Amino acid sequence: MQVRDVLVSAPGKAILHGEHAVVHGKVALAVSLNLRSYLCLKATTGGNLCVNLPNIDTFLSWDLRDELKLLDPDLVRRLREFVGVTNGNLNTSQMATLSFLYLYLSVFGSGELPSLTVSVWSELPTGAGLGSSAAYSVCLAAALLCASGAISSPLNDWDHTARWCQEELELINSWAFQGEMIIHGNPSGVDNAVGTWGGMLRFLAGKIIPLSRVPLLRILLTNTKVPRSTKVLVSRVKDKINKFPSIMAPVLDSVDAISCTCEKVLSEMTSEPITGEHYNALEELFDINQHHLNVMGVGHPALDTLCRVTLAKGLHSKLTGAGGGGCGITLLRPETSSAVVQATVQDLKDCGFDCWETSIGGPGVQQHAPCFLQFSFCPVGGDRVALKDDEESRV
Amino acid sequence: MQVRDVLVSAPGKAILHGEHAVVHGKVALAVSLNLRSYLCLKATTGGNLCVNLPNIDTFLSWDLRDELKLLDPDLVRRLREFVGVTNGNLNTSQMATLSFLYLYLSVFGSGELPSLTVSVWSELPTGAGLGSSAAYSVCLAAALLCASGAISSPLNDWDHTARWCQEELELINSWAFQGEMIIHGNPSGVDNAVGTWGGMLRFLAGKIIPLSRVPLLRILLTNTKVPRSTKVLVSRVKDKINKFPSIMAPVLDSVDAISCTCEKVLSEMTSEPITGEHYNALEELFDINQHHLNVMGVGHPALDTLCRVTLAKGLHSKLTGAGGGGCGITLLRPETSSAVVQATVQDLKDCGFDCWETSIGGPGVQQHAPCFLQFSFCPVGGDRVALKDDEESRV
Repeated sequence: MQVRDVLVSAPGKAILHGEHAVVHGKVALAVSLNLRSYLCLKATTGGNLCVNLPNIDTFLSWDLRDELKLLDPDLVRRLREFVGVTNGNLNTSQMATLSFLYLYLSVFGSGELPSLTVSVWSELPTGAGLGSSAAYSVCLAAALLCASGAISSPLNDWDHTARWCQEELELINSWAFQGEMIIHGNPSGVDNAVGTWGGMLRFLAGKIIPLSRVPLLRILLTNTKVPRSTKVLVSRVKDKINKFPSIMAPVLDSVDAISCTCEKVLSEMTSEPITGEHYNALEELFDINQHHLNVMGVGHPALDTLCRVTLAKGLHSKLTGAGGGGCGITLLRPETSSAVVQATVQDLKDCGFDCWETSIGGPGVQQHAPCFLQFSFCPVGGDRVALKDDEESRV
Repeated sequence: MQVRDVLVSAPGKAILHGEHAVVHGKVALAVSLNLRSYLCLKATTGGNLCVNLPNIDTFLSWDLRDELKLLDPDLVRRLREFVGVTNGNLNTSQMATLSFLYLYLSVFGSGELPSLTVSVWSELPTGAGLGSSAAYSVCLAAALLCASGAISSPLNDWDHTARWCQEELELINSWAFQGEMIIHGNPSGVDNAVGTWGGMLRFLAGKIIPLSRVPLLRILLTNTKVPRSTKVLVSRVKDKINKFPSIMAPVLDSVDAISCTCEKVLSEMTSEPITGEHYNALEELFDINQHHLNVMGVGHPALDTLCRVTLAKGLHSKLTGAGGGGCGITLLRPETSSAVVQATVQDLKDCGFDCWETSIGGPGVQQHAPCFLQFSFCPVGGDRVALKDDEESRV
């Protein structure tokens, strides 16, 4: 089967407001994070299926005539056996491989399996709650569907970057959700939706509603690198609500109101001239929610440090995601000078944190012209990640 | 007129929970703070009325036959003129003098004015929101009423310390409130009630309800010495509520629930064996309320430092009173060792703060035997404050 070469990217996600409260039936706002995962799919002729995942040090190759014909594309159980784990937890590399094989076989399994090499690299740290697995699944779904011809290739000759139509995005999203199912078992669907549509999503009681228009906001994303367990943190919040119901219920209501107020402010920023007052409000909402998250017991001294260090530069931060360490976001104002940004990044790095200047609210999955690769980069590990063998020379 | 020599003391007050929220119709808990003001009243024979207030560097003496007969005890307006201010703000010394003269003339004005010397000194910093003026007014009311015979002298020969009966406390409190009226114009009545009854008071919508039984809790009281205006802070909270009503209203509800939960925990501590769980709950309530006060915008970096420094020693703190600087309280557990307490006090002093180890929930106004003076001390200024002339030799 002849397949189309494809280069795609999908963004990570951050929770702007409503983490934890969403577990208790409140609104959360998820936004695309312009640290992206990139996938390059190349048709090959050697009769091999190759997958290169440099971020997680995974480089695999299978003989299509030999190894892969043992597989029944419908049976995830047999895929698990193939990857080498019959039960228990898979490691990141095994899950990524399983997810790839599942989507590959689902898209191409009815015909002759095509010989191709897929390389994926990411600006996103893995396991930091930033939707890196969803960005991976979205890239895989988009690239495989596009390569197979199941969806169009929206890129015109004169474009560097293009997006799919709503209908095709729906298809990408549903397949990406399948990939997330394999990796996470029971995903909320928020991460792959953000990776697919980008911008901002309102998430309430399992319902995901993409917001029509949101401004692009400059931020710093900081990874405190303090490890934590989302499960433990979620149950800590639950315990606190059970212990002090009359105190904690209003806090969740207040977080709900923060999400709704933030949505309103962001919507105003797209319909009227943006003023300092809009940014003041966004900063205040950050501060209030950060205090509420501390009340819920999901703060951490490293996050306090992040808030203090950035506030010393006049910038406002909050944790994003599960808390208890992990990542925080810092809002940058349009007038925040690059000198201030650089000094803040340096201060945060001096605390032992990783820190990226990026944006939220940007586009979801995109197709790129091959030349785009020359401008993309991968900051993980400090350098651009080398692609394996022949990919390296072609880009 | 022959008057009785009297030595009395009254405690300061701290807000345990509900500061600011009380302005918006929520419950606040006020507690007695065992930093006390002491008043020594001595009958003299020289025909002079002397007042010594070493804490505020005020030492005055009037000739009873000359100067004071110009005064009409019913007219505060004329008292103001006498003190030298017809309108505008009085300074601390002027207000204390005015309040003293008002109470003195009210108690003794119907007969011959007695010759006496009143000396008042305090362990409380002034102007720190710790009820030092109320402790002063309560001491004045108790001592003058007792000296005049309007209330009993409850002290038996074998007691070091005694309290008045409920009815006489009511009288002391109502006169102390008059003194507070002169000093503050429109006081809430909470401070003089705490100074009179001690223990803990529930304060809601202008109604003050003394709680029947509360445990004595060890605390550190820290004065960050950051100056602030209560008026500015109260209006800052109001502005924030107006700006984000749906976010702030639940925060006030949560503070209300904190006060009620705290009251419940403290009541349990007097009716069942005290456990670590009781202290854990009190600590959690401190932490949650401190975050809420930050949400209201009345935090301050110095208060953050206080919380961080004490938490490093495993101790939990919150601001008390208006915030924006001012004072904070740190809960000490029964098992907190004196080494930890001393180290914490030193760390706080190293931050430039004043710090006292004391307790909350102790008794209100008390009469003391003269020998009690030997054991009392006044930490203000670091040394025991010297009393003026003949008082010094008699104590």
